[in-house]
Amino acid sequence: MQDYKAPQRDTLFVMQEVLDFPSHYAKLGFEDASMDMVQAIFAESAKFAENVLAPLDAIGDQGCVWDNGKVTTPAGFKEAYQQYVDGGWTGMTHELELGGQGLPYSLAGMMAEWNSSANHAWSMYPGLSQGCIETIKEYAPQALKDAYLPKLIGGEWTGTMCLTEPHCGSDLGMLKTKAELNEDGSYRLNGTKIFISAGEHDLSGNIVHIVIARIAGAPEGTKGISLFVVPKYNVDNNGNVVNPNGVSCGSIEHKMGINGSATCVINFDDAKGFLIGEANRGLNAMFTFMNVARIGVGVEGLAASEAAYQGSLRYAKERLQFRAMDGVKNPQGPADPIINHPDVRRMLLTQKALAEGGRALTLYCMQLADKTLYAEGPEREAADAKLALLTPILKAFMTETAQESTSYGIQVYGGHGYVKEWGMEQLARDTRICTLYEGTTGIQGLDLLGRKVLGSKGKLLQLVGQDLHGICASAKQVASLSDYAKQLEKHLGELHNLTMAVADKASTNPLEVGAASVDYLMYSGYVVMGHFWLQIAQVAQAKLDSGTDEEAFYQAKLHTAKFYFERLLPRTKAHKAGILAGADNLMAMPTELF
Amino acid sequence: MQDYKAPQRDTLFVMQEVLDFPSHYAKLGFEDASMDMVQAIFAESAKFAENVLAPLDAIGDQGCVWDNGKVTTPAGFKEAYQQYVDGGWTGMTHELELGGQGLPYSLAGMMAEWNSSANHAWSMYPGLSQGCIETIKEYAPQALKDAYLPKLIGGEWTGTMCLTEPHCGSDLGMLKTKAELNEDGSYRLNGTKIFISAGEHDLSGNIVHIVIARIAGAPEGTKGISLFVVPKYNVDNNGNVVNPNGVSCGSIEHKMGINGSATCVINFDDAKGFLIGEANRGLNAMFTFMNVARIGVGVEGLAASEAAYQGSLRYAKERLQFRAMDGVKNPQGPADPIINHPDVRRMLLTQKALAEGGRALTLYCMQLADKTLYAEGPEREAADAKLALLTPILKAFMTETAQESTSYGIQVYGGHGYVKEWGMEQLARDTRICTLYEGTTGIQGLDLLGRKVLGSKGKLLQLVGQDLHGICASAKQVASLSDYAKQLEKHLGELHNLTMAVADKASTNPLEVGAASVDYLMYSGYVVMGHFWLQIAQVAQAKLDSGTDEEAFYQAKLHTAKFYFERLLPRTKAHKAGILAGADNLMAMPTELF
Repeated sequence: MQDYKAPQRDTLFVMQEVLDFPSHYAKLGFEDASMDMVQAIFAESAKFAENVLAPLDAIGDQGCVWDNGKVTTPAGFKEAYQQYVDGGWTGMTHELELGGQGLPYSLAGMMAEWNSSANHAWSMYPGLSQGCIETIKEYAPQALKDAYLPKLIGGEWTGTMCLTEPHCGSDLGMLKTKAELNEDGSYRLNGTKIFISAGEHDLSGNIVHIVIARIAGAPEGTKGISLFVVPKYNVDNNGNVVNPNGVSCGSIEHKMGINGSATCVINFDDAKGFLIGEANRGLNAMFTFMNVARIGVGVEGLAASEAAYQGSLRYAKERLQFRAMDGVKNPQGPADPIINHPDVRRMLLTQKALAEGGRALTLYCMQLADKTLYAEGPEREAADAKLALLTPILKAFMTETAQESTSYGIQVYGGHGYVKEWGMEQLARDTRICTLYEGTTGIQGLDLLGRKVLGSKGKLLQLVGQDLHGICASAKQVASLSDYAKQLEKHLGELHNLTMAVADKASTNPLEVGAASVDYLMYSGYVVMGHFWLQIAQVAQAKLDSGTDEEAFYQAKLHTAKFYFERLLPRTKAHKAGILAGADNLMAMPTELF
Repeated sequence: MQDYKAPQRDTLFVMQEVLDFPSHYAKLGFEDASMDMVQAIFAESAKFAENVLAPLDAIGDQGCVWDNGKVTTPAGFKEAYQQYVDGGWTGMTHELELGGQGLPYSLAGMMAEWNSSANHAWSMYPGLSQGCIETIKEYAPQALKDAYLPKLIGGEWTGTMCLTEPHCGSDLGMLKTKAELNEDGSYRLNGTKIFISAGEHDLSGNIVHIVIARIAGAPEGTKGISLFVVPKYNVDNNGNVVNPNGVSCGSIEHKMGINGSATCVINFDDAKGFLIGEANRGLNAMFTFMNVARIGVGVEGLAASEAAYQGSLRYAKERLQFRAMDGVKNPQGPADPIINHPDVRRMLLTQKALAEGGRALTLYCMQLADKTLYAEGPEREAADAKLALLTPILKAFMTETAQESTSYGIQVYGGHGYVKEWGMEQLARDTRICTLYEGTTGIQGLDLLGRKVLGSKGKLLQLVGQDLHGICASAKQVASLSDYAKQLEKHLGELHNLTMAVADKASTNPLEVGAASVDYLMYSGYVVMGHFWLQIAQVAQAKLDSGTDEEAFYQAKLHTAKFYFERLLPRTKAHKAGILAGADNLMAMPTELF
């Protein structure tokens, strides 16, 4: 993304004024993470995203090169990664005793947004390592932790997750990669994995693959899947690289976008691996990785909406076409800036509302994630439950709406949006992956409605609903916001009714869940985001009422909230119809009639 | 598009059974265009699209090469063009005495769909020639017609339209290209045009540019624009190429898609050109070209939805993931085809409904276009008026919905949709241009609501509304369809009310038109397409009632109609909210607050 500016002010606004991160960090024992320190870290992180990553984004689009198993990343990627390692960013949220900096998870999550806005493809390399580290931390025996974690946390090595095979993507129960026990207690793995991001590259000294495979003799389906650590180079007990393992990169994919990110075919030929977690319980363990990854993809959606907004806004203020309908705005020029045309503003405000509302929603999820990691007892359990519900919404809603934002990024530029020069078309291509990987939107819909909402008999929804009701109750006290609050309360009630309606139909026909699920997810997304816009508006109103020297910032929040409630929230009407439409209009037609 | 099959059956269904083209052609004097002949032409045209163009589509994505002013099209494009010329396709709808085949315009339009589905980029070369030919036919003096038309119609030469300049896209009033009178009555043109599709290439012996420019001393703005014919090579009175003109290709754009189509910067340096039409009235003349081109882009939208459906359907029937929720469908395989999952069907049926409903809408517009060309008196006037209203809907609604269809094309394939191998991502990239060129969706919205609906004080809407009411009145007699018919009648009434509401607000605030226009266009699109689904359903129901040996074909129509009315038409609810939302939530925020 050209000329990207990290939204430091808006992130701090949400942290300090909307979600009270200072208390949140203090309660979890991160007294060191003061807002002064956060601001200092943000300033450095912003510089890296703006000055190092953003200029490499267009170059990265030219892609990686595969040659006889070796993958070369685009010019500058390796140097940028080294700078990132030298800056200590790879270990920011990990334990001091492992070489990390002991900061809370949420901080890294916020800056992941900026890296992704600046350079989606590059940001995937360090991003994937985090899931690998978390999985090893949670499931590996101590000897493996000792051997692998310091170098992964230090960034000397990177990580991957190896799930997909040619014949199985969403349906991991079909996987064929085989693991056989060696005499020394390790396993030898054979099989082929595809779509492995960062599976092979030239950024790091070793690559640690987290691989799901089936131990010889294990049951078929998802109940026979185990999890392994398989390094590219074998590692001795001291964590030193010894010799090449039976892991090779057969090719890389030629893709629509994120071309700077190597998407690899990885072949395991008698590769030496180590079982982590319980045998045959690997899929459960993998969910640790997947949930982290899904939140990460939601952040990519947010990042894309923000980048699209920045790019569109710049052009809309500069590009002169036609006179404004309500009078000349730029009398000394030949025409007025296109930001004066209502439909251009509709697109800009959509992007802005999705980015800023999405940032608040995301940071709320980050707070929950912090609690799942650092809190104990009922607080941790509640956070776990809420995050379970919100993760598919964050993942799918933020990435589906990012398709719209980035498409508007092109549209605001007109024909210029379609040529490579301005970067808007790359942004759309890069962002297109987000509704596919780490579980498609369809899979997220089933996860939300089937597993989380109906699977908990509504308990999870009720739990999150309590928080949302709290936001409404508070905002209802503010005269200028009470209409918005009432709108949202109505929607929450409607969501409850819609849930009951689907549950009722699903009790006799399981297809009803799939028939309603994506519309249900989108409906939920607009309603949940609406609450954060309400909360933002309440903070802004209070600031304006009490006096502020940043009047423009807070006024803009109120304008954008108004836009959200009058233009975006009403989209729920169409999704409501989709939820209620039922399975019959989808399923009654015999397959052979298609 | 790989493995593309031209939808001959469905096109004939609409022509013969839904829109009665046999009578339509007979009334216009095209008795020769019998359905037997049409079928024979279709069979040949389908072969060309399927066997010649489709295999070149992926190759074309590698792009054109510019070298020192010369443009080389992708391997095979030139040979395909020669085959097209040899087949007589370039002159199909032109007069026999000019070397054409004297067939009606609509026939070419239908086959343009197939060429565009098979290979969007390639199809643009012959496509642009048609607008050039029509413009010369309508506005050029006889000597120019004699010199240019035979070779353009014969396909030996191709044509372009040169409108855009770096600083003006939508707002053509700002154009700077200058034309100065020569002593011999010709003009010399100087200036730079950008985004000129087929502006330079190696397919034809000459390229004839239709150029808008400002005659020295002409008024500023749109009232000082004149239209010129400017050939790449000068031409003598006998239509023979003489010597190079001052026309050169400065570079080609690197784009998101349609890479096989050369998008050129064209420099005019003392280029010799000929005024056609009245001086300073060029923009009006250009509308001939533009209206033809806009219908053509609408057809590209249809073509993309059809291609996306074909691609998705093939994969959805083959790809095995998970078991169907309502019982095993493929017991001998490891999982069931994904077409058994409700959300996959939701995507497939959306594509199918948009393609087949869009085909009927498009052919209806083609009938109107035929009447504007070949009918006389009130029938011609009525067709002109109706087409004026429907053109922006066809252009923008079919291309906006094509974005959804092609995005689902990727989504149904999951991660495989994102890699180049399957062609689905190329389809999405190629189709992305369609909401931009020949007037963005925003421009179409203003054209529809501002110029056409409000500009005619509702007359055009009323005229089209009569036809639509007729469809409802007829279908209301069929018991199984009367609910659909009533739904549509309600929507037509609502459209009337929404129009009045906007008109009322716009009378005091002109910004209200732009604030409502794109939602208004989308609302209209869903309602208009609904009528064609109703008509299709009525035909299908009648066939099934009276007995047919193609029961599957007609049953599928009824299923898809049901899907349309229960899942797509309700999207109007969200657009209604957008129409009524008003300008304030867009315009009240000062520009500097963005």
